[in-house]
Amino acid sequence: MASGRFYLSCMVLGSLGSMCILFTVYWMQYWRGGFAWDGSVHMFNWHPVLMVSGMVVLYGAASLVYRLPSSWVGPKLPWKVLHATLHLLAFTFSVVGLVAVFQFHNHSKITHLYSLHSWLGISTVILFAFQWSLGFTIFLLPWASQWLRSLLKPVHVFFGACILFLSITSVISGINEKLFFVLKNDTKPYSSLPSEAVFANSTGLLVVVFGLLVLYVLLASSWKRPDPGALTDRQPLLHDRE
Amino acid sequence: MASGRFYLSCMVLGSLGSMCILFTVYWMQYWRGGFAWDGSVHMFNWHPVLMVSGMVVLYGAASLVYRLPSSWVGPKLPWKVLHATLHLLAFTFSVVGLVAVFQFHNHSKITHLYSLHSWLGISTVILFAFQWSLGFTIFLLPWASQWLRSLLKPVHVFFGACILFLSITSVISGINEKLFFVLKNDTKPYSSLPSEAVFANSTGLLVVVFGLLVLYVLLASSWKRPDPGALTDRQPLLHDRE
Repeated sequence: MASGRFYLSCMVLGSLGSMCILFTVYWMQYWRGGFAWDGSVHMFNWHPVLMVSGMVVLYGAASLVYRLPSSWVGPKLPWKVLHATLHLLAFTFSVVGLVAVFQFHNHSKITHLYSLHSWLGISTVILFAFQWSLGFTIFLLPWASQWLRSLLKPVHVFFGACILFLSITSVISGINEKLFFVLKNDTKPYSSLPSEAVFANSTGLLVVVFGLLVLYVLLASSWKRPDPGALTDRQPLLHDRE
Repeated sequence: MASGRFYLSCMVLGSLGSMCILFTVYWMQYWRGGFAWDGSVHMFNWHPVLMVSGMVVLYGAASLVYRLPSSWVGPKLPWKVLHATLHLLAFTFSVVGLVAVFQFHNHSKITHLYSLHSWLGISTVILFAFQWSLGFTIFLLPWASQWLRSLLKPVHVFFGACILFLSITSVISGINEKLFFVLKNDTKPYSSLPSEAVFANSTGLLVVVFGLLVLYVLLASSWKRPDPGALTDRQPLLHDRE
C-alpha cells in the first residue's frame, strides 16, 4: 500500500519533471529562436534548459534513490553508485549550462556575475561541488568510520535539500530576469502578459511544485530505507552503510 | 549542553534576522529615497521591508516557538497562542506590504501581478492564509480529535516550511527585479555593480542564510518538543496537544 503510493508519487514526479524540461525547451525553441553553440543568444538558450534539467530534475531524481523500496533490501553499494552517478550527471549538466552563459557573455561583452540571480546560482553550483566531493569521500570511499558516516549523514541530507532549494530559487529569479530582459518592447511588454510571459511564469511555478514534491518525499514522507542492522551486504573494497 | 547550543543558534538567528530587516530598511532609506504612504515610489519602499520582516523574519521566529526548551514542559496552550499570534502578526505585515505595492501600482498606472515574482509572492501569501486558518481551526479550537491533529500535524509542519521556502524565493526574485528596474542608467547600470547592487545582493544572500538556518532548526535539529504523554496540562476550553 505504502509502496503503491510511493510509485504513484514517482509517476507524478516523473511527469512533473519531464514537463519542467519540455516547457523550458519549448520556451527557448518557440519564443527565443532555438539552440546553437556559437556564443550567440541561441547558445545562452542552453543555460535555462541545462540548469532546469541538471540542478532541478536530475538532481531531484538522484536525491530520491534511497526512497525506492527496492533499494531497502540487499547491498546498498549499487544504490550509492547510482546516487553518486546521477548527481555527477546533474553536476555535469549544470557546468555545461554555466559554460553556455559565460561564453554568451564573453561573445556579447556582457559582464559576468553581477545579478543576485548569478550570485546565488554560482554559490549553489559551488556548494554542490563541495557536497558531491565530500559525499564521495566519506560515503563511497572505504576509509571513513561508521561513526563519522553517522555523524555526517544528516548534514549531507540537509545540505542536499538546501542545494535543491537554492537551485529552485536561482531558477525562479533567472526566469523572472530573462522575461524582463526580452519582453521590453512597447507593443508587448512583460506587463501586458503576452503568451510567452504566461507560459514562462507557469514553467516557473511548475519547477516550484516539482521541487516541493521532491522535498516532501525526501524529508517528510515515511519512505525511508530502514536503519542498517538486519541487512547484510558484503563489499570487499567499499563500505556501503552509514 | 543541547540547550546551550540551541540558545546560541537563537542568538545567531536573532542577529541574522535583525540584519535582514536593517539592511532592507537601509537599502530603501539610503538609495531609494526613504518611506511615505502616499502612492509614490516611497510608498513602494515599504513593500520589501514589510515582506522581509513579516514573511521571513517574523515568520521564521514564529515557526520556531516549539523548539524553545522552555516550551517543552507544562501546558502547551500558551505556546500555541504565541505561535498563532506571531504568525498572525507576520501575516498582517505581509498584507500591509501588499497594500503598499498595490497602491503604488494604482497610483503610477502599473499593471498588477504580471511577473513571476508577483505570481509566486501572491500564491505564498494565499497559502499562508489557508495554513493559518487551518492551523487555528484544527490545533487551537477545541473541536478536532487527537487522531485528526496527529494526522494533520506533519502536513502543517511541511507546509509551514514550504511557505518559508516560497517567501525566500519570492524575496530573492523581488530584489533581483527591483535592481534591474532602478539600476538601468548608462553611468551606473546593475552590471557595473555599484555599491547599491553589492549591498542589495548581499541582503538577498543574508535572507537565504537566515531562512536555511531556520529550516535547519525546524526540520533537521533534535530540538523538538517531546511527544505528549508525560506532560499534564488542563485547559477547559481548548485542547492544547496534538
